[in-house]
This record gives sequence, C-alpha cells and structure tokens, in this order.
Amino acid sequence: MRIVGSEKFFVVMGFKVYGHPLSAPTQRVLLTLTEKELEYEFVFVDLLAGENKEEPFISLNPFGQVPVFEDGDLKLIESRAITKYISYLYADKGTPLFDKDPKKKAIIGVWLEIEALRFDAAAHRLNFEIVVKPIKGMTADEAVVEQLGAQLATVLDVYEARLGESKYLGGDDYSLVDLHHIPFINKLMQTKIKTLFDERPCVSVWCKDLLTRPIWHKVLAGLNM
Amino acid sequence: MRIVGSEKFFVVMGFKVYGHPLSAPTQRVLLTLTEKELEYEFVFVDLLAGENKEEPFISLNPFGQVPVFEDGDLKLIESRAITKYISYLYADKGTPLFDKDPKKKAIIGVWLEIEALRFDAAAHRLNFEIVVKPIKGMTADEAVVEQLGAQLATVLDVYEARLGESKYLGGDDYSLVDLHHIPFINKLMQTKIKTLFDERPCVSVWCKDLLTRPIWHKVLAGLNM
Repeated sequence: MRIVGSEKFFVVMGFKVYGHPLSAPTQRVLLTLTEKELEYEFVFVDLLAGENKEEPFISLNPFGQVPVFEDGDLKLIESRAITKYISYLYADKGTPLFDKDPKKKAIIGVWLEIEALRFDAAAHRLNFEIVVKPIKGMTADEAVVEQLGAQLATVLDVYEARLGESKYLGGDDYSLVDLHHIPFINKLMQTKIKTLFDERPCVSVWCKDLLTRPIWHKVLAGLNM
Repeated sequence: MRIVGSEKFFVVMGFKVYGHPLSAPTQRVLLTLTEKELEYEFVFVDLLAGENKEEPFISLNPFGQVPVFEDGDLKLIESRAITKYISYLYADKGTPLFDKDPKKKAIIGVWLEIEALRFDAAAHRLNFEIVVKPIKGMTADEAVVEQLGAQLATVLDVYEARLGESKYLGGDDYSLVDLHHIPFINKLMQTKIKTLFDERPCVSVWCKDLLTRPIWHKVLAGLNM
C-alpha cells in the first residue's frame, strides 16, 4: 500500500481512507468527505496486484474490499456505514446530507435501502461486466449483461415515478441517497447502459444534475481522473 | 388484504404493518415494534395469492414486497428503513437498540450493512430454495444451495471471529443488528443449513441467545407460530 501525500491529500483531521481511485465505493466515501469539507489522507491499495486480499489489508477488512476508513482508533468498513458516520457526525458542516425531521429522514432512509439493495445489486455487477472485465482483459458475459440491464430498468422505472414527484430521491433537497448513486451512474453513463438512464426523462435530468456537481468534479480531479 | 384485529393486534398507536406471518422482513419489523413495546395493526397480505403484485398493494410498494409500514400519513417500505425509523424515534422506550455514542453507533452501522449486503444476500436466497420452494411445491436447486451455503459460510467465518471478541455483533450489548438476523436464523436453523451455524462455537452461542429471547417468542406467538 502506498500513502499518497500531496497538497490535495494534506493530513489535518486524522481521517485516513484506504482505497482505489477507480473503486466506486471508495469514490462514495471521498465524495462524502469532500461535501463535508473534510480533509483526509488517501492510502492507495493496489487491487490489480491483489493487495486487498493479503496482509496487512486483510486485517483491516476480512472481506478484502476497499474502502476502509480510519478516524483515530475507530476503523470502519462498508462504504455506506462510513458515509453515514461522517454525515451524522458533521451534520452541520458543508453540504447538508440528511433532513433532521424524523419523518423526512425516514423517507431518505427508505431510498438509502433501495439504493443499497436494489440499484447497487444491478449497477455493481453491470459495472463489473462492462467496465472492470475489459480492464482485466476479460470479456463481458452478454447474457448476464442483458439480465442485469432488465433488473436495473425495473429499478429505474420506480425512480422515474419518484423523480416525477420530487427533485431528488429523498425529497426536495440533494441528500446522502443521491450521493450514494453518483459513482456508479458516472461509470455506467460512459457505457452502452447509458440509454437506460437517458430514455427516462426525470431520471435523465436527475443524472445530469448529479454528474455536473462541482464537488464531484473536485473529487475526480483529486483522483487525477 | 385482511385486517387482523384481536387482543394481540389492538390499535392504539396508529401504526399499521402490511405483511405476511411467514415473511422474514415482516417478522423483523414486528420484532422491532415488540422490543419497543409498541402496538400496531397487522394487515395480512396474501402472498401465495399474489396480492402483493396487484392493486391496492402495488401502490403502497411498487416493488410488490412486504412489509409496508404506516405511521399516520407516513408510509415506509424496506424492512430495515422501518426498523431504523422505529428504533431512532423510540430510542428511550423498551429495549435499547442503538448506542448513542457516535463511534459505537458507527460500529453497529458497519454490521448493519454487513447483514443487509452479505448475510442476507445468502440467507434470503437459501431460505427461498429450501424453505419457500417446498411450500410452493417446487424443488430446491441443489447446485444453488451449495453455492449459497459456501457464500454464507464465508460470512459466518467473519462473524465467528467477531463474536470471539464481543458478545454481540455490534458490541457488548444486543442491538438492532442482532435483531435483523433473527428471522432468517430462525428459519435456517430448522433446515440442513443449521450445521453451518452449529459448527462455529461463538456463532452457535449467539444464535441460541437470539432465538431464546422471550420477546421473539412473543412475536411468534402473536403470529400463531
């Protein structure tokens, strides 16, 4: 693992993110930190070399996946647990990512589950087939791509109806649930799967809104992407 | 849909749960309400007759799944979003299900994600193969059962290490993360998959602790199970 120290990743708060620039879950955590105007140290984990499956990384995360987050002696895995911790702890700093009203927060909570269990279930595997496999010199399984595309379309139909009622998934304001979608939407919008988003008008507007956020571009620039 | 009104489901708080007695996600919500000493109205949705895939239910949940929760004009889907709402709103009533310390709460948050994304991914589909399919007169796909069993074993290896360090997954105290596991553990412990839990000593003790909780038996009794 290689610790990246630069003006961009200047250590101030004691936060450390172990990850990979191309990993969507890593990007999800970096975006949350950037929305909250928090600085962090980035530790590069070489996934292609398999560093995530061996010591010392495997002691940080027995599932062998990035990102891992450290806040002093607190070590967290699972990108969404990390983003929730950061956004609750720094509720009043940077971009608000939760509504404090319990009922509005509960609605955001519903869509957070839908992203994690339904959107991601299709998007994550689609990304593996049509983005990751070519990087590794492998060929996408077209039958799997078709089945996952149909699965994603079903989820996006529900999103289209929801985004016809409110500007963002959680309500009128951008929140953590929209943020959680950004990394995979960014990847899939650069593939043939883009049509699934484009052919749904409200989803299309929402995607454009998310992908043109200056803070997202700040994260990508920080990763030299 | 049939509203069940009895001494057990006496309407006081205005909470309504649309569900099915055999549905693990439904049981997860009822268990949370019972831990919090809250009363509710139970609306039976006939899954075998496909009521969940048609109106009026499909307007409550476009994904066509139980449970759906109502608190007055607030309608929530996704069992884990519902349990989080209830346990945050009634933090000081009944059984504590979250630690209020942000770091301890973050650790619980990590294991909540692991349950939803890793344990459930295997347990839910295993339950479908070896519990639901026989009810529907179908035959389990043994190759799928074997693959899912291996997937579950990998997760339980991580649980075994964790439960060697702390009595419960989230820390020293029972919390929402343990609760979320109970319905599927209860189902799978009645199948041949039981051995996966039994052969891991710390996991086995933890399962026994969870399945002998009087509040869980109160829920099962309420469902006439």
